[in-house]
Amino acid sequence: MGEFDIIKAYFAPQSSSAILSVGDDCGLFQLSPGCVCNVTTDTLVSTVHFFADVDPFDLGWKSLAVNVSDLAAMGANPRYFTLALTLPGDVSNQYIASFSKGLLQLAKQHHIELIGGDTTHGPLSITITAIGETPKGKEIRRSGAKDGDHIWVTGDLGSAAFAVDQIKKGQIAPSYSYERLVRPQPRVAIGIQLRGIAGAMLDISDGLLADLSHILQMSNVGATINAELIPLGADLKKMNNEQALTYALTGGDDYELCFCANSQHDDFIKNIAHNCGVPITQIGTITSKMGIELKHFSKDMQLPQTLGYQHF
Amino acid sequence: MGEFDIIKAYFAPQSSSAILSVGDDCGLFQLSPGCVCNVTTDTLVSTVHFFADVDPFDLGWKSLAVNVSDLAAMGANPRYFTLALTLPGDVSNQYIASFSKGLLQLAKQHHIELIGGDTTHGPLSITITAIGETPKGKEIRRSGAKDGDHIWVTGDLGSAAFAVDQIKKGQIAPSYSYERLVRPQPRVAIGIQLRGIAGAMLDISDGLLADLSHILQMSNVGATINAELIPLGADLKKMNNEQALTYALTGGDDYELCFCANSQHDDFIKNIAHNCGVPITQIGTITSKMGIELKHFSKDMQLPQTLGYQHF
Repeated sequence: MGEFDIIKAYFAPQSSSAILSVGDDCGLFQLSPGCVCNVTTDTLVSTVHFFADVDPFDLGWKSLAVNVSDLAAMGANPRYFTLALTLPGDVSNQYIASFSKGLLQLAKQHHIELIGGDTTHGPLSITITAIGETPKGKEIRRSGAKDGDHIWVTGDLGSAAFAVDQIKKGQIAPSYSYERLVRPQPRVAIGIQLRGIAGAMLDISDGLLADLSHILQMSNVGATINAELIPLGADLKKMNNEQALTYALTGGDDYELCFCANSQHDDFIKNIAHNCGVPITQIGTITSKMGIELKHFSKDMQLPQTLGYQHF
Repeated sequence: MGEFDIIKAYFAPQSSSAILSVGDDCGLFQLSPGCVCNVTTDTLVSTVHFFADVDPFDLGWKSLAVNVSDLAAMGANPRYFTLALTLPGDVSNQYIASFSKGLLQLAKQHHIELIGGDTTHGPLSITITAIGETPKGKEIRRSGAKDGDHIWVTGDLGSAAFAVDQIKKGQIAPSYSYERLVRPQPRVAIGIQLRGIAGAMLDISDGLLADLSHILQMSNVGATINAELIPLGADLKKMNNEQALTYALTGGDDYELCFCANSQHDDFIKNIAHNCGVPITQIGTITSKMGIELKHFSKDMQLPQTLGYQHF
């Protein structure tokens, strides 16, 4: 199949809210009145960001999910995305069809539409650029954490990193952890409800401590984290607590939200959790003293040497 | 250097018109009043879209130029772009610095700002998503060509394809052709001036005949092309005319504009060419009879078997 046949067969939108979608020099769209445009890009490279034998459905899902997660992290409504798909010469139509199914299922779930792209030959790699919108001035940045704010995380942590370790050891990852690795759920609905509530927010992709550090640096504050409050993934609860905490504190690929909010919003936040059916857990407090202080049952803990995934 | 050091050293913007630029979960920007958003993505893969030993300055330039060319093809004002850069482990800081210089020089020339990105490990590949704006309803699509319209192309054609052929044969490409291959000049100023003038437009990236076919199919019309009017690149004028025409009609990588306009605009178009210092040449006429008729000094010519670059 040629490039245009692939697009037509697997990626042409049924209908679109865009002014122009796939098929011209550019996609063309209009934002909702009063909104500004959020844009983010993430690449997944074979054998670096995913195992070469991963189910293409899951690969399609995750390629978009990691980008939508960045939109969620600003409290944005997902709108459009472009897909740059680099495929080896020997890839089958079945593979592309399955990739497209996973991609478009996640897209449908979050009302985000494919608006353009590029299909090229080369080593398997996927770059998606996701575009969202926030009412002007309502985006949730990394820089707004304040002394005394409570620090919260959605869902649970560490499962994806544990699954990766298991697979690298030649073992089968337990199903809960594997599911968390290959089909992360971007927390879009929660992100949107936190507009005006969370002072700072990001998504955890490189590990809780590494990502929280970005909030702290950009907000010029520190944090105390209570390790016993960290929500552990189901399979992590069964293992040695220290090992479990290492996955939860420094493992990458969680795609949960970490945010800071004034304590007056505690009840509102618990209500969001209740309504969304996703746990939201307070794990610590913002402090005026720079750096991260890690506590475990009121005792100080040493910070791990590596706070998270190192890209280079 | 880590990912964040690379971004800080080579890609952090000096100043920005964006609300938020590199450094948060998303870039954030606002369009000009009355404008809609144009978005396009293109990937360059090492050894597929460029020679592995190409000067990294030129690679940075071209990676952005091919995307800006898509904005030009809709008559859009370039605004922002994201950069997804996949780099092998052995790439030097010097290489990245030079890539960044080429990229940002082209960016400065066209007032387009880096607003986000992703840096990953893997086989060398660059995906850029470029964002532009057009006043609502003023974008120039592919679908508006009408019977009797004159067909125009900017600049000259065939040089890049000739340069690629020379290099593949182990020869040195003549400088004019090589320059056209590695540093295409997106025709942004011309594109903008053609709003309300050109009924249909695109940029020539896969070869004139292949790309013109998109306009014809989407506009439900045909074309007569006068081969002797095709503007040939400087080095092509010295060679056998048939060979030169093959490059100019079917060679890829030109990044010139091809557009259709009512003949009442002929003088206006010649005036744009004069003001921009770029030739704009009428090469044929839109007809109601589907398909492309190729003429050479009033004699019919056979269409080449392959109209342009095949991606798959």
